[in-house]
Amino acid sequence: MSYSIRKEVLNVEKYVAGKPISEVKRELGLDHVIKLASNENPLGCSPKAKEVIKNMINDSALYPDSASYELKLALGKKLNVTKDQIFCGAGSDSLIKVLCNTFLSEDDESIMASVTFPRYDTNTRLMGAKSIKIPMKNNGLDIEAMVDAITDKTKIIWFCNPNNPTGNIFKKEDFNKVLKRIPERVIIVMDEAYVEYVESDDFPDSLELLKENPNIIVLRTFSKAYGLASLRCGYGIATEELVGYLNRVINPFDVNLFAQSAAIAALLDEEFLNKVYETNNEEKTYLYGEFKNMNLDYIKTHTNFIMINLNRDDKPIYDALLKKGIIIRPGFLLGMPQWLRITIGTRHQNEKMIKALKEVMG
Amino acid sequence: MSYSIRKEVLNVEKYVAGKPISEVKRELGLDHVIKLASNENPLGCSPKAKEVIKNMINDSALYPDSASYELKLALGKKLNVTKDQIFCGAGSDSLIKVLCNTFLSEDDESIMASVTFPRYDTNTRLMGAKSIKIPMKNNGLDIEAMVDAITDKTKIIWFCNPNNPTGNIFKKEDFNKVLKRIPERVIIVMDEAYVEYVESDDFPDSLELLKENPNIIVLRTFSKAYGLASLRCGYGIATEELVGYLNRVINPFDVNLFAQSAAIAALLDEEFLNKVYETNNEEKTYLYGEFKNMNLDYIKTHTNFIMINLNRDDKPIYDALLKKGIIIRPGFLLGMPQWLRITIGTRHQNEKMIKALKEVMG
Repeated sequence: MSYSIRKEVLNVEKYVAGKPISEVKRELGLDHVIKLASNENPLGCSPKAKEVIKNMINDSALYPDSASYELKLALGKKLNVTKDQIFCGAGSDSLIKVLCNTFLSEDDESIMASVTFPRYDTNTRLMGAKSIKIPMKNNGLDIEAMVDAITDKTKIIWFCNPNNPTGNIFKKEDFNKVLKRIPERVIIVMDEAYVEYVESDDFPDSLELLKENPNIIVLRTFSKAYGLASLRCGYGIATEELVGYLNRVINPFDVNLFAQSAAIAALLDEEFLNKVYETNNEEKTYLYGEFKNMNLDYIKTHTNFIMINLNRDDKPIYDALLKKGIIIRPGFLLGMPQWLRITIGTRHQNEKMIKALKEVMG
Repeated sequence: MSYSIRKEVLNVEKYVAGKPISEVKRELGLDHVIKLASNENPLGCSPKAKEVIKNMINDSALYPDSASYELKLALGKKLNVTKDQIFCGAGSDSLIKVLCNTFLSEDDESIMASVTFPRYDTNTRLMGAKSIKIPMKNNGLDIEAMVDAITDKTKIIWFCNPNNPTGNIFKKEDFNKVLKRIPERVIIVMDEAYVEYVESDDFPDSLELLKENPNIIVLRTFSKAYGLASLRCGYGIATEELVGYLNRVINPFDVNLFAQSAAIAALLDEEFLNKVYETNNEEKTYLYGEFKNMNLDYIKTHTNFIMINLNRDDKPIYDALLKKGIIIRPGFLLGMPQWLRITIGTRHQNEKMIKALKEVMG
């Protein structure tokens, strides 16, 4: 090639997503495939959101509102913050890139756990900044060590809570201790993509902490418990000042028209969200029991997925499950070889997965 | 603030989009509002695309295919290029940022017309690169002067054809002359968002030129003639090698699930596209006649919008039209004060707009 690609682009690899069902069917010639790989909501989304999508079909030619006005109003009301403290994007994924574009320049550093959501790292490196990866402690975030790693070059520290792919949380009192040691010039990202699934009273109240810590940015999503991954809608909460800067970087039409309206309907349907939470807990208990029967270690989760320890090479197990039409997320793709990340599905899906897992584990 | 924002972000302004109908209704207390500001398709989208959206509602919880496999297959077939020569994103807007992220670093230069689509400039500056703006000639791109401006620092040259907001085109033979003078190390972006509306046999065949010029990148969209602006889907065509790099930068789930399937249905519905083209031509002729009656100069367009010359301050006219429930795009927001950019609507919309325009022009 004679044109020049930015060196930062040459130095990153393409993201490998969980295989879509259509791809597995196509590649393996299978008719029935169960996907428990991308932490999609097995109950779908709120019927009210579906109704809204149906009613908007005749508006397909219209651009979305670049301000996401109604959605920000609804979120502000629900979360007890101002509309102008909310920013929206095409999923958390898009917003993570926006944060990197806003704060990171060459030679800056951002601190994250190893292992955590991989997009912090990729997007940090795309800006020419350096990812400082802090090993986990007890398979969860070592928040003390992460804060110890702050230097003059640190611009962002990423706390994924609950952590993806381990599913566990760090607790309020532990976080309060380390928070005091983070300088105000460092942006603290609380990525709470799975917050709706958390089963704990000790979970940090990030919105409360934001009141005293203007350097906190909270990220959340409609892709998990709200069941709207198809449409791409994530949001964040920060100070109005900070949101003003982020809005310069966010693509004006990042949140599509259907996503904005479906998200509002989903947000208001608390009955559906409760059902999601309860069903997930029931199925979690079922799966814990099955894994115990199989003598498989697992990490106690506060999400809709469970990380299990195979204590052997995960790739052959992943491949064998795939051939049986079960897609899960293998640890080797996540930086945790010998583990599998399995989405908590419906009872039917979970039973099929357990049956297949028993067969391939021999 | 104690945190530091990248200086590139401090130096750009937030994009001001065309006001959505809901906002104008809310702010001005109006019941009936006609929007001819964002070049949306007044005929909507293909009924087949609507059917597809309806049939996907129960899949709302699923992530889109990060590879946009089926969509790329359909586009490749239609355009006679390989699947791997296609890249997809959430509208051209998203892809323009991807191109800047891929090729531009601090102190690089990108060349564009003044006036043209403003996102080339913003996204160039967000990367710390410099926008070189070449004044128009006869209200269209001065492609000779643009190519004359190439220096060792030039990384991208942006040709918007037809040009937004002027609506006119540059011709094949003129482009062939300047193309020879563009070094292979400079990326040539042919932004053809409005290509489906072009009424000319002299329009450059960018896909044919790509065969001999591996530094050409063609951008197109489903937001205009295909009437799917709501869902955000744009695409590009380049060499397989180049697309490989772009895919490292594109957010993996940038094209949502509904957009991918609706775009395929829209692409295959040639009957609808023909109707769009013909209706647009009829209404264009109607509006040309009306503007002539009003003694208003206009630029002959190859798009679904017309730029008219008021020969006086456009802001008061824009405001007065707004109060009458007609949203158009004022020139002062586009870098062409004293002009108005008006989307070609349905006959009903056009008549209403003309009536209101006559009233406010006095």
